[in-house]
Amino acid sequence: MRQILNEQSIRLGTCYYPEHWDKSLWREDLTRMLAAGIEVIRIAEFAWNKIEPAEGEFTYTFYDEFLDMCEETGMQVIFCTPTATPPAWLTEKYPEVLNAEIDGTLLRHGARRHYNYNSPVYREKSRIITEKSASHYAGRSCIIGWQLDNELNCETSEFYSDADHKAFRAYVQKKYGTPDALNEAWGTVFWNQTYNDWSQVYGPRHTVHDTQNPHMMLDYIRFISDSCISFASEQAEIIRKYAKEGDFITTNGMFGNLDNHALNRKVLDFYTYDSYPNFAYTLDGYQETDFMKDRWWSKNLTLVRSISPSFGIMEQQSGANGWTTRMDAPSPRPGQMRLWTMQSIAHGADFVSYFRWRTATIGTEIYWHGILDYSGRDNERLEMVKGIYADLQHMKEIAGAVYDAKIGIIRDYDNVYDTSIDIWHGKIERISDNALFTALQKSHTPFDYVDLNDEGFSTDVSSYRLLFYPHPCIMDQARAEHLKKYVEQGGCLVLGCRSAYKDMNGRCVRENLPGLLADLSGADVKEFTLLPPDEQDITVQTGEGSLPAKGFADRLSAEGEGSILGTYANTYFAGDGAIVEHKVGEGKVYYYATAFSEEAVGFFTERENVKDPYGEILKLPADCELAVRKKGDTSYIFILNYAGEERRVTFFKPVYDLLEEKTVAGELVLPAYGVEICRIV
Amino acid sequence: MRQILNEQSIRLGTCYYPEHWDKSLWREDLTRMLAAGIEVIRIAEFAWNKIEPAEGEFTYTFYDEFLDMCEETGMQVIFCTPTATPPAWLTEKYPEVLNAEIDGTLLRHGARRHYNYNSPVYREKSRIITEKSASHYAGRSCIIGWQLDNELNCETSEFYSDADHKAFRAYVQKKYGTPDALNEAWGTVFWNQTYNDWSQVYGPRHTVHDTQNPHMMLDYIRFISDSCISFASEQAEIIRKYAKEGDFITTNGMFGNLDNHALNRKVLDFYTYDSYPNFAYTLDGYQETDFMKDRWWSKNLTLVRSISPSFGIMEQQSGANGWTTRMDAPSPRPGQMRLWTMQSIAHGADFVSYFRWRTATIGTEIYWHGILDYSGRDNERLEMVKGIYADLQHMKEIAGAVYDAKIGIIRDYDNVYDTSIDIWHGKIERISDNALFTALQKSHTPFDYVDLNDEGFSTDVSSYRLLFYPHPCIMDQARAEHLKKYVEQGGCLVLGCRSAYKDMNGRCVRENLPGLLADLSGADVKEFTLLPPDEQDITVQTGEGSLPAKGFADRLSAEGEGSILGTYANTYFAGDGAIVEHKVGEGKVYYYATAFSEEAVGFFTERENVKDPYGEILKLPADCELAVRKKGDTSYIFILNYAGEERRVTFFKPVYDLLEEKTVAGELVLPAYGVEICRIV
Amino acid sequence: MRQILNEQSIRLGTCYYPEHWDKSLWREDLTRMLAAGIEVIRIAEFAWNKIEPAEGEFTYTFYDEFLDMCEETGMQVIFCTPTATPPAWLTEKYPEVLNAEIDGTLLRHGARRHYNYNSPVYREKSRIITEKSASHYAGRSCIIGWQLDNELNCETSEFYSDADHKAFRAYVQKKYGTPDALNEAWGTVFWNQTYNDWSQVYGPRHTVHDTQNPHMMLDYIRFISDSCISFASEQAEIIRKYAKEGDFITTNGMFGNLDNHALNRKVLDFYTYDSYPNFAYTLDGYQETDFMKDRWWSKNLTLVRSISPSFGIMEQQSGANGWTTRMDAPSPRPGQMRLWTMQSIAHGADFVSYFRWRTATIGTEIYWHGILDYSGRDNERLEMVKGIYADLQHMKEIAGAVYDAKIGIIRDYDNVYDTSIDIWHGKIERISDNALFTALQKSHTPFDYVDLNDEGFSTDVSSYRLLFYPHPCIMDQARAEHLKKYVEQGGCLVLGCRSAYKDMNGRCVRENLPGLLADLSGADVKEFTLLPPDEQDITVQTGEGSLPAKGFADRLSAEGEGSILGTYANTYFAGDGAIVEHKVGEGKVYYYATAFSEEAVGFFTERENVKDPYGEILKLPADCELAVRKKGDTSYIFILNYAGEERRVTFFKPVYDLLEEKTVAGELVLPAYGVEICRIV
Repeated sequence: MRQILNEQSIRLGTCYYPEHWDKSLWREDLTRMLAAGIEVIRIAEFAWNKIEPAEGEFTYTFYDEFLDMCEETGMQVIFCTPTATPPAWLTEKYPEVLNAEIDGTLLRHGARRHYNYNSPVYREKSRIITEKSASHYAGRSCIIGWQLDNELNCETSEFYSDADHKAFRAYVQKKYGTPDALNEAWGTVFWNQTYNDWSQVYGPRHTVHDTQNPHMMLDYIRFISDSCISFASEQAEIIRKYAKEGDFITTNGMFGNLDNHALNRKVLDFYTYDSYPNFAYTLDGYQETDFMKDRWWSKNLTLVRSISPSFGIMEQQSGANGWTTRMDAPSPRPGQMRLWTMQSIAHGADFVSYFRWRTATIGTEIYWHGILDYSGRDNERLEMVKGIYADLQHMKEIAGAVYDAKIGIIRDYDNVYDTSIDIWHGKIERISDNALFTALQKSHTPFDYVDLNDEGFSTDVSSYRLLFYPHPCIMDQARAEHLKKYVEQGGCLVLGCRSAYKDMNGRCVRENLPGLLADLSGADVKEFTLLPPDEQDITVQTGEGSLPAKGFADRLSAEGEGSILGTYANTYFAGDGAIVEHKVGEGKVYYYATAFSEEAVGFFTERENVKDPYGEILKLPADCELAVRKKGDTSYIFILNYAGEERRVTFFKPVYDLLEEKTVAGELVLPAYGVEICRIV
Repeated sequence: MRQILNEQSIRLGTCYYPEHWDKSLWREDLTRMLAAGIEVIRIAEFAWNKIEPAEGEFTYTFYDEFLDMCEETGMQVIFCTPTATPPAWLTEKYPEVLNAEIDGTLLRHGARRHYNYNSPVYREKSRIITEKSASHYAGRSCIIGWQLDNELNCETSEFYSDADHKAFRAYVQKKYGTPDALNEAWGTVFWNQTYNDWSQVYGPRHTVHDTQNPHMMLDYIRFISDSCISFASEQAEIIRKYAKEGDFITTNGMFGNLDNHALNRKVLDFYTYDSYPNFAYTLDGYQETDFMKDRWWSKNLTLVRSISPSFGIMEQQSGANGWTTRMDAPSPRPGQMRLWTMQSIAHGADFVSYFRWRTATIGTEIYWHGILDYSGRDNERLEMVKGIYADLQHMKEIAGAVYDAKIGIIRDYDNVYDTSIDIWHGKIERISDNALFTALQKSHTPFDYVDLNDEGFSTDVSSYRLLFYPHPCIMDQARAEHLKKYVEQGGCLVLGCRSAYKDMNGRCVRENLPGLLADLSGADVKEFTLLPPDEQDITVQTGEGSLPAKGFADRLSAEGEGSILGTYANTYFAGDGAIVEHKVGEGKVYYYATAFSEEAVGFFTERENVKDPYGEILKLPADCELAVRKKGDTSYIFILNYAGEERRVTFFKPVYDLLEEKTVAGELVLPAYGVEICRIV
Repeated sequence: MRQILNEQSIRLGTCYYPEHWDKSLWREDLTRMLAAGIEVIRIAEFAWNKIEPAEGEFTYTFYDEFLDMCEETGMQVIFCTPTATPPAWLTEKYPEVLNAEIDGTLLRHGARRHYNYNSPVYREKSRIITEKSASHYAGRSCIIGWQLDNELNCETSEFYSDADHKAFRAYVQKKYGTPDALNEAWGTVFWNQTYNDWSQVYGPRHTVHDTQNPHMMLDYIRFISDSCISFASEQAEIIRKYAKEGDFITTNGMFGNLDNHALNRKVLDFYTYDSYPNFAYTLDGYQETDFMKDRWWSKNLTLVRSISPSFGIMEQQSGANGWTTRMDAPSPRPGQMRLWTMQSIAHGADFVSYFRWRTATIGTEIYWHGILDYSGRDNERLEMVKGIYADLQHMKEIAGAVYDAKIGIIRDYDNVYDTSIDIWHGKIERISDNALFTALQKSHTPFDYVDLNDEGFSTDVSSYRLLFYPHPCIMDQARAEHLKKYVEQGGCLVLGCRSAYKDMNGRCVRENLPGLLADLSGADVKEFTLLPPDEQDITVQTGEGSLPAKGFADRLSAEGEGSILGTYANTYFAGDGAIVEHKVGEGKVYYYATAFSEEAVGFFTERENVKDPYGEILKLPADCELAVRKKGDTSYIFILNYAGEERRVTFFKPVYDLLEEKTVAGELVLPAYGVEICRIV
């Protein structure tokens, strides 16, 4: 049986670096961890030299000695491939393994993740170190699973080395077959970019204004994602040859230019996330006006859950974060460490591993604090771990329960990639993305992200009473069919502006908009415009009041069975359609002709009666989060108070407080950063 | 007879890209254009591969087929040389044709204008493609003229390739003859920059703070300008061998580091401008407080008129502008497309070609909208074109009329270049440039720009009752003589601070200031200072009130016949002279010792009685523009309302409204973005 | 006897560039200088080509002719080595002498200081030109001393050429002996940076985020400093072979990444500073809210005094500063030139040389104005020099007097370097550095900077009643001992937060904090945190009121004899210790657990009764500076009015006004920018 995420209990771990500390500290460290409830450690992700100190010279004594001690003390271990930081002997001898800037400048040794995925040399060295590590250590009884590399695509998710250009050329050659097909797909006739030989094709290189062909960019990002997955896959295949029955393979994420869903599906047993909500309080990035702050990480956790329904946290923030050169953050306040742990669990994590046991005394990350400070003395954070461990003993029944949501928000990687290429697309997506999360959070309306690709949705969507698909600018026939099927079978789909005006290469379609979604939506986009900077208070009038238009305006007519539900209330296109409602089969489609505001999200969720689904059970302030995990018929409520002050919650029906082991009802006071976890009776 | 700018009518055109669209659309497109009043198209400026798909392989069928259809439908064509976007086969095989950053990093294929003017290979390839295109197509009856390249010096006007360094070395070797002469001209003794061999001489390269020798920089910019003109000239000479009688050669501009006056004089039949006033509403650059917004483009049009008294608009904004990677702008509001067309015509354009017929569905410029959207369906903008065409049928008599101004503002390229090299010069120039344009516009006082070089003024200046020459920091004897002559013959010249403190190499002169203008101005600059940042309310006291000092303060005495007309009113140099008035021959010179404010412009124009010259005929609000074109004794008034609300104009005398075909008088209401065009009776 | 800084008089000089001006001007210039009181000139620092116009070709006639004229007119000369601007013939032939950016891009000819200290070629060329210059000119009677190079480490203090990487490798090889020792010192086990061969070791190169190993960075900056000192030292040794008895060697500073104390100690006879207080009014850098403005230069002068108790000003601002490409400043206002001269003298300068005689008419620095403007005519600044010279005739008795301070602020180069590497350290240091200077200046409490290294303090600290050592994050045993000794012998030491948490390699220590200062301070840091961005009003409660916590909070307990003197008043660590007082031997240590505010500085100086030590003699406004120089028992008071308005000072006791030659008492009015210099009777 798998040792974590096995539906038996919620377990704690930590990240440990035996190579940073004198051997004499190891046993005491392991013993103190176990005493605090930490039963799993992750090791070795930056320790290539401890196994291969020079090219082709292998030694296993360091970890053998350490793993012996783990086995003696009863500590369980997640072992990593060390490929995130290639050794100096490797990068110095084979500079072709290094990543490069867009102008070709190499990213040198001395930081991390300075390698590229496509250098044949690096691929070979990565296979060798993986083979050596797995074949030697995989049989150890303390080992329960493996982490591939570390934070794939972290630091940078762009690759411009010669090896990458060559691999990209091969990638598109395989995809398109002939230069002419590529020319067609990339619209190279524009600005005379036409290629008549494969040797002329490169990934992005430095140009005037660093502008690039947007269709090439879509393929380039897909190529990066595929390169990363292929790199990880090679390692996983090797490990699987040696891993013991039940031992898992995972990696820790979640970074850009990467189809994390595909990575998880193709390579991993499950996915783990590194959760650092304290970034919200970093001094150089703090936004006074950002209401969501650390609660924003619930958005990330929602996305992780979409990637990997069963997931863990490989690095959960314990102390202050920071490098010597950038990022400076205060220590989490008392309670926040527990709050953020419960935030992870509320969203579905059944394994939480703290970063890290001891704060490093060396290197760039001396301010990326662990549980213990430099001295290693007992401290407040260690106390907090013990408290959390005690809490978890009351929560075992929650293990394996699934997050309960009636609303889904559709994402697909083609559109996600496009938002980073296309500032027009990016702008509306950011507006809607923020509005959706914020509105649903404030109104205590749990939601899931749902991935969509040509094969279908990443989950059975029939259980969602409402699906938002904010701006599917890129659309193809297969996906349009999946949407149609959801609606015909009774679903309700809400589309935002600019839907379906591009094809899979990011080329604009010549059909009337919304193109492939025109029939489904019953809407016709006659004209459109970005909202002008000097007229930002344009509104949409509906029967139930007025909604602010955001970012963009499609100007709509209703077609066929469609009917106009709202119109622009002002500026030169006052009276034009802004919301079209269209009944299709058993279900319904809304086309909302601008980007989403919190008010607009409220409008659709109220209209479809999916807002605040637990409102009959409890009432809580907007700045507390509600999450519900469900196991069979039993529902577990999590209430998370992110405020630095106490908050009051009212239960209209009695519930069973798991941590206090008693039934509670009526008004309850949550302390600052407090959590309430209860079973619905 | 020339088919456009022939004083017979004001004609419409559009930019068309047959290579972007399936052949099956061509005929319908041409027919629809003609139906809307569009009778001229510009083609082929980014289509090298359509004629030379591989090195030395030429094919003419694509355009032959298209031009056949033009001739069948009656469309007239401006054909372009395609050198703005060299093919991939060329840049890949000959990377020396690429432009580079100052540190030598090449600007790669994939954008546009990534070539340099000085690579012998590129010069040869450019000559060949021009020869092939001209020799094959020039005889076609539909062709009425040629455009050279596209937007010379757009994207970047700096060139740092090896070929440029070599050419620059040859350029200064020819100019100076010996290293010693160059050392003297560039003041290289400063910081020991002395060259003792030509091989040591380069154009700008990366240095600490990227600071460069300012005298070298003046020559470098002149070199860029000459390189560009020489490049264009080679193409023009080839085309002239083949062009039919009456067919013209032009190019579209107007960009930096280029003597556009010389380009037009030496190479072109006339100049065309690309007018995009909607840039004023781009989201990432919008300035709430910038009063002039789209009206600012009248400044550019004034400058175009100075370059080319007869001119056209090759690209007139029709839809929203934007790239996928930068610049995002709303669609022009109803009326703005017509307003901006009339703005161009008011300033003298008798040919207006819209950018572009169809919005591209591919490439970086999918958001640089044309008349039609992606679908090509009929839309509001097409309706607007039809309306404009109808307007123009009422305005034929205006064709060939010239803009009427009694005030000139002198510019010369040496000082223009210097403002981009010298932040002290640049700062005052920007202040005065803005104040002059804004004050004259608001007060409805039409003006012209006048170019000055050693040969004299670009136009006969005797008709100007007032010439401003804000900051002729660089001055030489020849130009001083031209100024003197204007004044002696009865002109009135207004000089601003810092006049004549540099020679043609940008070296400061050792004479008492204003140097070569000291005798003419009757002023002596005893001391001077930038205005300190903590004392920005320094004023100049005159008999008629107080003027704000701006940017800089020369502290003056009057010499000879000069008399002090204003003194500083405060700070430590209170009482020092700030305006000197000097009568010379039949005329007069003012030396204004600081940069210009709107108030100062008002002071001089009122004093010389040249403000609001049409004030006896009509009164209009400050945010409407007045322009007047004159043909023989007949004057045509243009009133342009840039406001999003209606504005009222009062005619004190009856005028004939051309569009309404009736005499009007008294109060008239202009709608938002409305125009009024009338003949003075 | 030394001709300047000889305790006989305070002398004036200027910087002169005979190579910029026609020979015919020389004699007149020298004569006018002498007439104004300028008796010393500095020459030749950018004039390599005037002695070696081509490789290996030497000529001496230029300076021989000029020095003849100096000797005829009686002008004294400081001669420079010209190595700050290597010739074009040198950099073109030997590009390895150039400095480079971190990515390897060379910094090219055309600016200044584009060379590196470690190229063997440049070292050799530098030795040759120094040998040639010294051997030929050193015997001239007019020469009184030598300046090495010009502004070492100005423009950039980072070096990344191949020569630097090689030299750095040799430097650390010598320091550490084996790669293993280096690995240990640099903590390379972190992120697997481990080196197993010297060939893998480089100085900083471009990495992701340009982050570098912080321990390597400390060594790299030490290496730069040593490289610079070694470069200067070679020149000094050569000059000393030829220099006449009494002729001095100096250089002008004061720039970063350089142990100026060591430079002065090892290489120079004394140090000179380039003082440009008008930078406070540069338009592109002006801070309305910055109270200290030009008075901030008193901080720099205090530091110069620490480096070199006897010092001069080699470049004292006379006119406006500015380049053509950056920095634009107004002319100093009347009085400021004299004020800033007296500011230099008040802090100990007995030689003040103005930059520069004539404003250059060529090159990047045409706006770095000298005494005379381009024309060379008599002007206000020349008048001011004459007035200052007259003042100095009344002040001769002050020559040699030393600045009088009872408070010291300890600095050490390891911590200074660390603030530029480590943003956490840098942040608190900047807060405290500003607060200390501002509070002590406003309260008229003179202070000195004191350098500390393993050998001890740079001066006898027993005379200081209070030593602040704001944030000695890096600490070693030797320095801890020196501090202890100071305290035991009766001194009072005030430490700020984060003391002693790093060792000399910047590695965090594992001892309880404040580590090596724990015993001395009687404090124990239980927990710590950066102050969160959303709680910036955290305060420290003391018996005498409340002090704002700044930047960081150590949370203290008192240990041993320590006692809690103040506690945090709010947030989650309210009640935790914030000030610990600890009596040790005859003296006392305070540990102040946050960064310093002006209020905190006031708290400790009042508590120790060292605030406003001249308060019984006079009272003056906060925006006037008080400085006192002392010679034997005689004290000279300088009062400097930086305000643009008059200020009133009250003398409680009669003093003798040196400039007015009379005894004054009671209220005195200082004009705007005025100075008062008097002897305490």
